[in-house]
Amino acid sequence: MSRPNLQIACDHSDLPSALADVKQVGDIVDIVEAGTILMLQAGADAVACLRALYPDKIIVADTKCADAGGTVGKNCADAGADWMTVICSATIPTMKAAAKELEEVQVELYGDWTFEQAQRWLDAGISQAIYHQSRDALLAGETWGKRDIAKVKQLIEMGFRVSVTGGLSVETLKLFQGIDVYTFITGRGITSAADPKQAALDFKQEIVRIWG
Amino acid sequence: MSRPNLQIACDHSDLPSALADVKQVGDIVDIVEAGTILMLQAGADAVACLRALYPDKIIVADTKCADAGGTVGKNCADAGADWMTVICSATIPTMKAAAKELEEVQVELYGDWTFEQAQRWLDAGISQAIYHQSRDALLAGETWGKRDIAKVKQLIEMGFRVSVTGGLSVETLKLFQGIDVYTFITGRGITSAADPKQAALDFKQEIVRIWG
Repeated sequence: MSRPNLQIACDHSDLPSALADVKQVGDIVDIVEAGTILMLQAGADAVACLRALYPDKIIVADTKCADAGGTVGKNCADAGADWMTVICSATIPTMKAAAKELEEVQVELYGDWTFEQAQRWLDAGISQAIYHQSRDALLAGETWGKRDIAKVKQLIEMGFRVSVTGGLSVETLKLFQGIDVYTFITGRGITSAADPKQAALDFKQEIVRIWG
Repeated sequence: MSRPNLQIACDHSDLPSALADVKQVGDIVDIVEAGTILMLQAGADAVACLRALYPDKIIVADTKCADAGGTVGKNCADAGADWMTVICSATIPTMKAAAKELEEVQVELYGDWTFEQAQRWLDAGISQAIYHQSRDALLAGETWGKRDIAKVKQLIEMGFRVSVTGGLSVETLKLFQGIDVYTFITGRGITSAADPKQAALDFKQEIVRIWG
């Protein structure tokens, strides 16, 4: 079992705030993400700025792309992204078109996706998936449960590298003990902390404690 | 049966090109859309520029929002959008959160959505849907068929106002004769024409010929 990555999601509504927050933790984390909210506000500049600040980190463009995978993929690659996300309801041709343009594409799991669909993504060469607790679902009182953990396990057993995200804290990491999670993604779990740098270090330390 | 709207989708990879194209047809169409590709590249400026140029038109932010509906909705409203889109795989809380921020929210139909889900959107107060031929599916050789038309009809019978989009031309409009389509959305069907203004007028004229 390998040590999971830590990914910071910059999901701010403006680029300056995102840059101010990421500056505190960007050197600590493994992966830096231009979040969907940020990209819809600041556009490709969000990706380009993160790439300029962190030339050696993996940069993800969280486009949740649903269509025109080739164009969106090329645009993200041009801005400096290594990876980008596609929404689970995108068609296979969209996912494949995006995958041609970047090093990796990740499928974002929202709504009523099925394991039959997931097998089709694998068959199409897409082997990263992101398992969410939706922000809005969290706001509505839902949280990580046995059903989520079982689905994450099943995706990993199918052959996916699985990122998990949504309401994660240092305390929730132990829910995933014994599971080969690829990446933990957190945004405000770090950036809203009183001391974001310490929060990122605490996440890292807990990952090392559990996964070695 | 009322006359369908005509919507121009600005799905360019840069804002100046989008503005140059929309300038030719913005006064002719009913609805002006900041496309997903454009928003991911230029951010909320895309919406703000379209609002500034067309203060009296309906402006749509095609975010295909999958999460954080409240934040994305507020950001789009702040930039001047009247409507925004959400992806069909978004959760109901996400759709409802977006709908609180704008005049209207439209569900974008991609992938394996079901009519049971569609009923839940209606029950949640979301009564606009956008039926697509995915750009990538079109590139893969698919086109408008009887199955698409039947689904559009069924959505309308359920109570949705339905926009249709994807590979539309003046010639394809007649496929929808007798159907109470709410809006026809086209991008390059107009902007890539030798004479975009004439293409927009041709679309309008064909809509008037068929729907009166």
